[in-house]
Amino acid sequence: MSTSGPGVPRPFRRVPGGGVLELLDQSRLPGRIRWIRLADADGVASAIRELRVRGAPAIGLAAAHGLLLEAEAGAAGGLGGEEVVARLRAAAELLVGTRPTAVNLQVCVGEVVREVEAWEGGPTGSLVDRIAGTVRALEAEDEAMCRAIGEAGVELIPAEGGVVLTHCNAGALATGGIGTALAPIYVAAERGIPVRVLACETRPVLQGSRLTAWELERAGIPVEVIPDSAAAWMMAAGEVDLVLVGADRIAANGDTANKIGTYALAVLASHHGIPFHVAAPRTTFDSSIPDGLRIVIEERHGDEIRRGMGRLTAPREVAVRNPAFDVTPGHLVRGFVTERGILHPPFGPVAGLRSGGTSTPPQESP
Amino acid sequence: MSTSGPGVPRPFRRVPGGGVLELLDQSRLPGRIRWIRLADADGVASAIRELRVRGAPAIGLAAAHGLLLEAEAGAAGGLGGEEVVARLRAAAELLVGTRPTAVNLQVCVGEVVREVEAWEGGPTGSLVDRIAGTVRALEAEDEAMCRAIGEAGVELIPAEGGVVLTHCNAGALATGGIGTALAPIYVAAERGIPVRVLACETRPVLQGSRLTAWELERAGIPVEVIPDSAAAWMMAAGEVDLVLVGADRIAANGDTANKIGTYALAVLASHHGIPFHVAAPRTTFDSSIPDGLRIVIEERHGDEIRRGMGRLTAPREVAVRNPAFDVTPGHLVRGFVTERGILHPPFGPVAGLRSGGTSTPPQESP
Repeated sequence: MSTSGPGVPRPFRRVPGGGVLELLDQSRLPGRIRWIRLADADGVASAIRELRVRGAPAIGLAAAHGLLLEAEAGAAGGLGGEEVVARLRAAAELLVGTRPTAVNLQVCVGEVVREVEAWEGGPTGSLVDRIAGTVRALEAEDEAMCRAIGEAGVELIPAEGGVVLTHCNAGALATGGIGTALAPIYVAAERGIPVRVLACETRPVLQGSRLTAWELERAGIPVEVIPDSAAAWMMAAGEVDLVLVGADRIAANGDTANKIGTYALAVLASHHGIPFHVAAPRTTFDSSIPDGLRIVIEERHGDEIRRGMGRLTAPREVAVRNPAFDVTPGHLVRGFVTERGILHPPFGPVAGLRSGGTSTPPQESP
Repeated sequence: MSTSGPGVPRPFRRVPGGGVLELLDQSRLPGRIRWIRLADADGVASAIRELRVRGAPAIGLAAAHGLLLEAEAGAAGGLGGEEVVARLRAAAELLVGTRPTAVNLQVCVGEVVREVEAWEGGPTGSLVDRIAGTVRALEAEDEAMCRAIGEAGVELIPAEGGVVLTHCNAGALATGGIGTALAPIYVAAERGIPVRVLACETRPVLQGSRLTAWELERAGIPVEVIPDSAAAWMMAAGEVDLVLVGADRIAANGDTANKIGTYALAVLASHHGIPFHVAAPRTTFDSSIPDGLRIVIEERHGDEIRRGMGRLTAPREVAVRNPAFDVTPGHLVRGFVTERGILHPPFGPVAGLRSGGTSTPPQESP
């Protein structure tokens, strides 16, 4: 199989000519492959909120595209530079507010806004070009980061093959490349290592069964779906060699916010002596927060539980707790697979992504 | 509230006049309250297989009713005694084969079969009467056992109130009384103790959100539904005082087969220092097996995962692992709440349900 071929899906694509982004509606997968056309930041914000695009890196890139669309729409509508800049500031605020937990969103939007603020005026087209360049750079960087994460993380998979358990979807659908948690799996498959994946279903939105299983099947990688509640039993049965998950935000001490259920897997892996690793790019590390206590956990609508599959699965008005994420303490994470190798907390400022003075030295990837 | 009033549901009821059992179709709850009418053992076996009635004690009782219906149908059809006995033997085999994990099914069917084999002939009506008496006795015993479990287990709930996390449905819908795991909660509520329940959704069949939440709401007991994967996070947040679950089969050393996900909760409760108890009646203890390794784990159809909510939630043909149960090692269970008090393994022969020479002496309920 080739993981750089058409087998690996992309979460969105620019329509040639500009002004339109086609986005794969992940809320309809796997039943229906539907591309929706977006032409402004509002549309992108709605798509993020409605989970039509999800995954920390992908929503960061989608938001950057949203700002580009907004600038293009302003230019096409003949608006003046100041008015476009004002619209972009409002759009940036709107986009950053869509999902409070993922730090990538803030980072990507921040990079575009910095370009906008640094713009010294002139034809609106020059502002559009400037933003387009930033978006292209963010995308290229994301794709390269995924590849580097894959090459660093493949070392964790036994050369004779093994079973990786993963949660949610931290794959190609969640990024601009071959994913984060799934990247080492794609690289292993490229190298002929017989890797198999146990995909936790990931209630309530089922990103594991709907998305991870779908994208791995497309790529020809063996995958089995399990209910979230069966992960412990699979571990006890000796059927899991490694747990590999993505992240939405990582504090300086390694505390990791990720999809609800990640924390349970970390505790269970520790109980069974199974290595538990987090794969994430630079933009997911937030050294401005010392630990996970400061991470805002998004609570989503109870109907994801009460009628998540479009059918009443609980009493109509029953009380529900629906935290979208949990925080795994850094000490339960054996290593952080990044584009600069497998690192350990404490983490320095984002740009440096330095591994601190822990007993296990950081292993830099080549 | 009154937990003996109409607020507490029953899984089935005899229609006056005999020959028909009305069974609440639990596969339709909570969206629809539908009673189905069954007139023979075949119908009961199908209802058990299709999870229209579930819960170890309830399926045991339903199977006993199935044999009664079979005898009544034979008598009404003018069959001779020997032919009815032959039909009952075949029906018993059919019924026992419907769910391999629950031991209650074997026990209840076994008691009826013993009556049948002990019958010395005569008018077929006398065989029917004999079976009817056995079924009534089994039901009365089950109801009394639930009540005794509730009274033993209520001691585990802090007098000032607390939050009990439970999995699946081990409530009134699963028994002939006020349930097993939910019995202490009903008794606490009767006594005015402010008890609140966190109900794990319990994928794939969602007995927690569909059944436990429904029956507790009906009884006026505060309940919140959570995804299975959120239980660990609730524990870490200090929001769980006690975990209380039912059981399908308990080995002599305390290893406990129960709904998939129970083992994860036991490990997680242990990690967080939260008491984890199993509530179960006498018929669930199987001292003929020394440990959980001998317990047959039923693997159910993959479509419960792939299209469990009547909608495609995974790729159409994707491989799936769907074990219906897991086995929790006895050492992770702080105590077994039974109709004879809170006991500890090793357990002697079923009839005695003796607690062996452990460091914690058995506490007999009054």
